[in-house]
Amino acid sequence: MTDDLREQVHAAARRARVAADELVLATRERKDAALHEMAAALRARAHEVLEANAKDIEAGRAAGLAENLLDRLALTQGRVEGVAAGLEVVAGLPDPIGEVLRGSILPNGLELRQVRVPMGVVGMVYEARPNVTVDAAGLALKSGNAALLRGSSTAEHSNTALVAILRDALEAAGLPADAVQLLPCHDRASVTHLITARGLVDLVIPRGGAGLINAVVQQATVPTIETGVGNCHVYVDATADLDMAERIVLNSKTRRSSVCNAAESLLVHADIADEFVPRVTAALQKAEVTVHGDDRFARAEGVVAATDDDWDTEYLSLDIAARVVGSLDEAIAHIAAHGSGHTEAIVTNDVRAARRFTTRVDAAAVVVNASTAFTDGGEFGMGAEIGISTQKLHARGPMGLSELTSSKWVVWGEGHVRPSS
Amino acid sequence: MTDDLREQVHAAARRARVAADELVLATRERKDAALHEMAAALRARAHEVLEANAKDIEAGRAAGLAENLLDRLALTQGRVEGVAAGLEVVAGLPDPIGEVLRGSILPNGLELRQVRVPMGVVGMVYEARPNVTVDAAGLALKSGNAALLRGSSTAEHSNTALVAILRDALEAAGLPADAVQLLPCHDRASVTHLITARGLVDLVIPRGGAGLINAVVQQATVPTIETGVGNCHVYVDATADLDMAERIVLNSKTRRSSVCNAAESLLVHADIADEFVPRVTAALQKAEVTVHGDDRFARAEGVVAATDDDWDTEYLSLDIAARVVGSLDEAIAHIAAHGSGHTEAIVTNDVRAARRFTTRVDAAAVVVNASTAFTDGGEFGMGAEIGISTQKLHARGPMGLSELTSSKWVVWGEGHVRPSS
Repeated sequence: MTDDLREQVHAAARRARVAADELVLATRERKDAALHEMAAALRARAHEVLEANAKDIEAGRAAGLAENLLDRLALTQGRVEGVAAGLEVVAGLPDPIGEVLRGSILPNGLELRQVRVPMGVVGMVYEARPNVTVDAAGLALKSGNAALLRGSSTAEHSNTALVAILRDALEAAGLPADAVQLLPCHDRASVTHLITARGLVDLVIPRGGAGLINAVVQQATVPTIETGVGNCHVYVDATADLDMAERIVLNSKTRRSSVCNAAESLLVHADIADEFVPRVTAALQKAEVTVHGDDRFARAEGVVAATDDDWDTEYLSLDIAARVVGSLDEAIAHIAAHGSGHTEAIVTNDVRAARRFTTRVDAAAVVVNASTAFTDGGEFGMGAEIGISTQKLHARGPMGLSELTSSKWVVWGEGHVRPSS
Repeated sequence: MTDDLREQVHAAARRARVAADELVLATRERKDAALHEMAAALRARAHEVLEANAKDIEAGRAAGLAENLLDRLALTQGRVEGVAAGLEVVAGLPDPIGEVLRGSILPNGLELRQVRVPMGVVGMVYEARPNVTVDAAGLALKSGNAALLRGSSTAEHSNTALVAILRDALEAAGLPADAVQLLPCHDRASVTHLITARGLVDLVIPRGGAGLINAVVQQATVPTIETGVGNCHVYVDATADLDMAERIVLNSKTRRSSVCNAAESLLVHADIADEFVPRVTAALQKAEVTVHGDDRFARAEGVVAATDDDWDTEYLSLDIAARVVGSLDEAIAHIAAHGSGHTEAIVTNDVRAARRFTTRVDAAAVVVNASTAFTDGGEFGMGAEIGISTQKLHARGPMGLSELTSSKWVVWGEGHVRPSS
């Protein structure tokens, strides 16, 4: 059985390679036409998607899926329209492929260019939300990659319907249907086969909780990009404007507490603790946030005493860990020990503190006097996002189209040979 | 014992992190001064290096090391001068750190910049040549990284002497000695501990044969970059200038047959086989190259009949596999099946063929009418090279200073919070 599954995944990867070899020749015009075709097909066949989604919802409810997971799983006419419109946005973005990154004529006359090329075959492993299926397929196509999609079994009917529509649209647009394929989703082993298909798959991007991402990183022999684990901090420095600090803390924590750029920890400089701790605690509690505080914070009513685990917890809920630190460097050290390298913010009016924080804190995004919630491909002007990388290799922070590409050196000569040295 | 070794490697990585945290604050001036200090110290203490090297050579000879390996291991006054001069070249290169890769003011007024930052702690695993110890230390330092060097046990005395001198020079220049550390080299397990020190080490670059690189890739949980396996092809198209083709084939094969950018296979279009096959075979044989040929090539005297394995072999010697192909696309398919993604060359006078080859062949470098031997950091104008990446993630082709860096988004606001959507 497992060997069959392995062969199924590998066969899909081989078909994807054939498709990728065609995509490398596809012009932007053809790719954009296919994206518009996909959007139109999703709109025209929305009823198929909604019927399939209803089956997933029913099965999820029967299996006792939590209400917030059911909500993430649910599609509506409006959400289908949203993903279709998303494909049209991607069609409007510049094509990353062919961009010349560096180029020169060498002293010996060789013409040298480094150009962006597709990665090739890209795997995505993700959880509940079926809209990721369409987003990932669209971004992969625009960047010239064939996509192997391994979604959640809870979204199986929805994903199957969506991928069937996308594949029909690709064929109608004259591109290979195998540029988008759905992998079997019932057995965890299909993930293992995907991330060990070295040579067949060029990149795997896991999107999901820390458990999924760690499992992928431990087992993978295919290159992977870690995404989306965010233990983000807001540090309020001694010279902070306290009105500004309160706004930023609240926005960072409560704008959407379930996403990776939400703040999970608050650090406050001791010099302003007497004034700011009671004030921010009251404001957070008013916004229904549970504060897990150190001794200083725990003096206030309703504050839960923080345990060591709290500093490392990505709550993804209306909870925040909070402590007082003696100095900027203590805040930086706390972040180095507990942060996940996603987004770290300082609120300060001291230029030297801001510069030290942005230089020393090692994270995908470091923010001065603004909310952590801005770390997002859309906000950063990328037009679309396939995830937020928290690793340092290849891509760091929001990943748009260009982060799905590799590069190639193209060298033109006139019979040049290299002298012995 | 193994647990001790693990702790030894981890402790070195933790010291490297402390050093890396200091390097992130070091200006270009300070780093360049340290590089000059290192060069001067190597010159002043060359006798220590040569004495240590003599012990390695003696031990190598006693252990029956092959003459070419002894040659790679051997240091002379001239070679020590060479690595010292190399450090001064690196000092003269622009600092990659702080380079602004992208930047803009967002519609809401947020000031956004993506800047180059050091990777952090970088591990190198490499074989015999002790000059790599100095090259790697210099490139890591200039790019703001702390280096963990795991060299070969055959070079232990030489590496120990070199690293002691480099560390003294770092301290004399006011930078942390732990920015350069040598790891234990007697037990293969020290490699395993290095490549699984996730969170402690940011990147490991293996430099060596296919065996080492595969072992690293299979076991690593730390991000790695594959380097240097080159099964490079020269394809001679139907319209090639045959004089040019002969020059390019000979240079690609014989300039230095032991390096990764040397050609290992020759593909010849059927239309010119009658004229070119005898001619290139004779020229190769005159240059003492053994031709492992298909049926067409094997008609000539002295040609060894190629086996299936020959197409996948990186000889690194005066051997070449050779076959006739029916078309450009057959050549492209052969390269896709057997190439290692390093450097692939076409000799042609047909623009359409050249464009199809450069677009469809998936390799770090694709070359039109020039030798494969040009794929080299020095030739590409990078000033220095830490290896040639044959993977698609992060860096592809010759890796210079900027390939040893990551990036970070720096965001400045004035109390910006993100509206709910």
